[in-house]
Amino acid sequence: MASGQTLTHLDAKGHARMVDVGDKPATRRRAVAGARIEASPATIAAIVGDTLKKGDALAVARIAGIMAAKKTADLIPLCHPLALSKVTLDIVPEDGCAALAITATAETTGPTGVEMEALTAASTAALTLYDMAKAMDRGMRITDIVLLEKSGGASGDYRRTE
Amino acid sequence: MASGQTLTHLDAKGHARMVDVGDKPATRRRAVAGARIEASPATIAAIVGDTLKKGDALAVARIAGIMAAKKTADLIPLCHPLALSKVTLDIVPEDGCAALAITATAETTGPTGVEMEALTAASTAALTLYDMAKAMDRGMRITDIVLLEKSGGASGDYRRTE
Amino acid sequence: MASGQTLTHLDAKGHARMVDVGDKPATRRRAVAGARIEASPATIAAIVGDTLKKGDALAVARIAGIMAAKKTADLIPLCHPLALSKVTLDIVPEDGCAALAITATAETTGPTGVEMEALTAASTAALTLYDMAKAMDRGMRITDIVLLEKSGGASGDYRRTE
Amino acid sequence: MASGQTLTHLDAKGHARMVDVGDKPATRRRAVAGARIEASPATIAAIVGDTLKKGDALAVARIAGIMAAKKTADLIPLCHPLALSKVTLDIVPEDGCAALAITATAETTGPTGVEMEALTAASTAALTLYDMAKAMDRGMRITDIVLLEKSGGASGDYRRTE
Amino acid sequence: MASGQTLTHLDAKGHARMVDVGDKPATRRRAVAGARIEASPATIAAIVGDTLKKGDALAVARIAGIMAAKKTADLIPLCHPLALSKVTLDIVPEDGCAALAITATAETTGPTGVEMEALTAASTAALTLYDMAKAMDRGMRITDIVLLEKSGGASGDYRRTE
Amino acid sequence: MASGQTLTHLDAKGHARMVDVGDKPATRRRAVAGARIEASPATIAAIVGDTLKKGDALAVARIAGIMAAKKTADLIPLCHPLALSKVTLDIVPEDGCAALAITATAETTGPTGVEMEALTAASTAALTLYDMAKAMDRGMRITDIVLLEKSGGASGDYRRTE
Repeated sequence: MASGQTLTHLDAKGHARMVDVGDKPATRRRAVAGARIEASPATIAAIVGDTLKKGDALAVARIAGIMAAKKTADLIPLCHPLALSKVTLDIVPEDGCAALAITATAETTGPTGVEMEALTAASTAALTLYDMAKAMDRGMRITDIVLLEKSGGASGDYRRTE
Repeated sequence: MASGQTLTHLDAKGHARMVDVGDKPATRRRAVAGARIEASPATIAAIVGDTLKKGDALAVARIAGIMAAKKTADLIPLCHPLALSKVTLDIVPEDGCAALAITATAETTGPTGVEMEALTAASTAALTLYDMAKAMDRGMRITDIVLLEKSGGASGDYRRTE
Repeated sequence: MASGQTLTHLDAKGHARMVDVGDKPATRRRAVAGARIEASPATIAAIVGDTLKKGDALAVARIAGIMAAKKTADLIPLCHPLALSKVTLDIVPEDGCAALAITATAETTGPTGVEMEALTAASTAALTLYDMAKAMDRGMRITDIVLLEKSGGASGDYRRTE
Repeated sequence: MASGQTLTHLDAKGHARMVDVGDKPATRRRAVAGARIEASPATIAAIVGDTLKKGDALAVARIAGIMAAKKTADLIPLCHPLALSKVTLDIVPEDGCAALAITATAETTGPTGVEMEALTAASTAALTLYDMAKAMDRGMRITDIVLLEKSGGASGDYRRTE
Repeated sequence: MASGQTLTHLDAKGHARMVDVGDKPATRRRAVAGARIEASPATIAAIVGDTLKKGDALAVARIAGIMAAKKTADLIPLCHPLALSKVTLDIVPEDGCAALAITATAETTGPTGVEMEALTAASTAALTLYDMAKAMDRGMRITDIVLLEKSGGASGDYRRTE
Repeated sequence: MASGQTLTHLDAKGHARMVDVGDKPATRRRAVAGARIEASPATIAAIVGDTLKKGDALAVARIAGIMAAKKTADLIPLCHPLALSKVTLDIVPEDGCAALAITATAETTGPTGVEMEALTAASTAALTLYDMAKAMDRGMRITDIVLLEKSGGASGDYRRTE
């Protein structure tokens, strides 16, 4: 990183601002974020249910994630409000059933990216799973909230490599 | 875990519900949650600033966390609304400056715990730091969102050991 | 309706999603919804007031409906957020003064329709009337919340016939 | 009803106000509200799913109702904010499968009743069902939003008879 | 004021926090705030209407003030959430009809005061009047947003003298 | 002003409405609003801090203003929702240190102006400063909330002269 590099969300005096995106063109934007929640296999089983007795738990988390994506600009102080054109959440047990993997996808057509919307969706889905299972397992750990990929916009596409 | 253990937030049919806490006494509740955001040292330095040029970045994240704690019941579908009596956020660089450690404390007097408020505060502060620094460093990773301790309520005190 | 028809708001696995409208063109959209609230003539009279003593009751309901239209995407989980360009509410006593008829009109220019905004406005105005009059008349009934007409968008215009 | 009876939510000049409940004792309150959504049998079937392919639709509506109950004071202008201690939603097909019957129950301990919370939950669940099925069936009708029963508070218990 | 006095909403390091009110007793609290909006007599007349044609303008402003009082903790970052037991707004033309005087009263029973709720109600009512009349008169001025009186709580009663 | 001039936000019957902007073109809009908060010099000093001990107070007010701008359509009943492309807040002590001067700038590209967003940002920043300093100084006065300038839109540019 070049010396002197600074945060775009602060002005020259270090003051917080919502940066000006008025001159940026509206393009199609897409972001995918991931999150994981680690829990005991019994907790994972209670969340996921079985073929005969599938409860609402994963649906609650998916819906919480979708609704949170719509609240992103209300939660993250310097985020621009935008009109999401698509949000999806995918929650699947990892091999070994010691964690659930959450993937959130957000899209819009506009002057700013939707990374924060995807990240907010993924993390809120994880928090919602924690909430539903916390009476069973207080030791759950939410981890690996990352941007997996991003497309659209002048800064170029991004794909996490790891 | 005992066989047959199920999520309290689902009824016998597996349907989501806001569980009845009407018979639980109002007691003093406290929860402390942690989160970490890993980033390059240059990014950490840009967020934290130096003695001469300290910007608003950490303040923005602290305030985002405090305000998010107040929105918890609006974000987490089955959370009970409650009147927080205290919220504090602490954000400090870890040794080596490859991560910021976030600690959020929430308190209330009421029939339900404040774990979700503390966890929501910590994770929103982390997301806010990501937002401000994402133009520098898209590879940041939010991790280790955990309940550190909890007191008050019939289920007993909890302190994470790890 | 063809057998096997499914809900667009669920994916192939039955999972809730905010459907992708990124490829739909922005067109001028309009929807009109209706609702009725049945109450005793004395209650209707108290709400409507008389020429000499007209209170705020109908104004409160109109404003509640307009403000609720703006919150639609926050209330209805899979609704797309959109920028309303017009909302109006009309509330008139029906002949015989045993009910108030509510009509809500919403408009936007965008890729999705505004049916839910009009329906949310009409039903919230009805709930607000219930709230103001409930101390007089707990037996009020809100009924006939329907889409009256809709225009704009690829699915064609609609006008309720009944 | 006595002549001259007026709305408690308006003052002597007819001006809207949030009425003073500061002198009312906090008691245990409960309200149950109902709503119905009439639709074609094919639409009902698509919402309810079958044993083999049960989707999220009813879960989405239940969660929307629960979350809307928590937003009641934000939607209904003169409603007092309160801390709900329980919210449940029940959605079942009626005989003949031409309608879904929604029942919402809300409880709190406080100085004001929870009728509006139960009614808001029931009507929002109905609107959410409309939203998910509207591409199949624009003619659905939401009806019979009523208070079924209420207990707690000085005005006495209420049970709808009809 | 003693030298060295500092803001209670910042900790010893100057960091924002929601201060701990967990040890403060719940008492009956009341606050009255004022605001004024100066405008041309013609604008005032258009807002207030005349005996024959009284529109919704003052009702809209009153309702906006009441609803804003309920959002105070969502707007003011370090404010504690609380359950308002009463909110009223009064808007009257001043002598000479060059200004409207707004008075907002808020009450609760709790550990913290309701000054911010009354001030938020008064200022939002003023902003709402500005919004409705701005096409006529962009030069309006909102002024004199002050706390008029306050009672309840350990810090003693207050009455503005001026 | 011509006789018979009326408020655009009310229809011919005096009923509140969100006016139709569907036919107005989307243009680049900008508004600047001001506000002042008068306080004792000691209070101003505590808010502003000194070179050695600068706390979060001004940052909290700036962020509150930015976040409030995004909530404008939720606060002001007849305001159109819009997607802000920029918001900045500037808070500086006036000469003599008896007041802080707040300036808020808002921009968007759309069919409606952003005056209310700028005014809401400025007034909320002022209320936030009041909140943080109220334990020191209950006599603070928020004043001079005005539109300083406005550009974009058919009604022409405006610059306050005074």
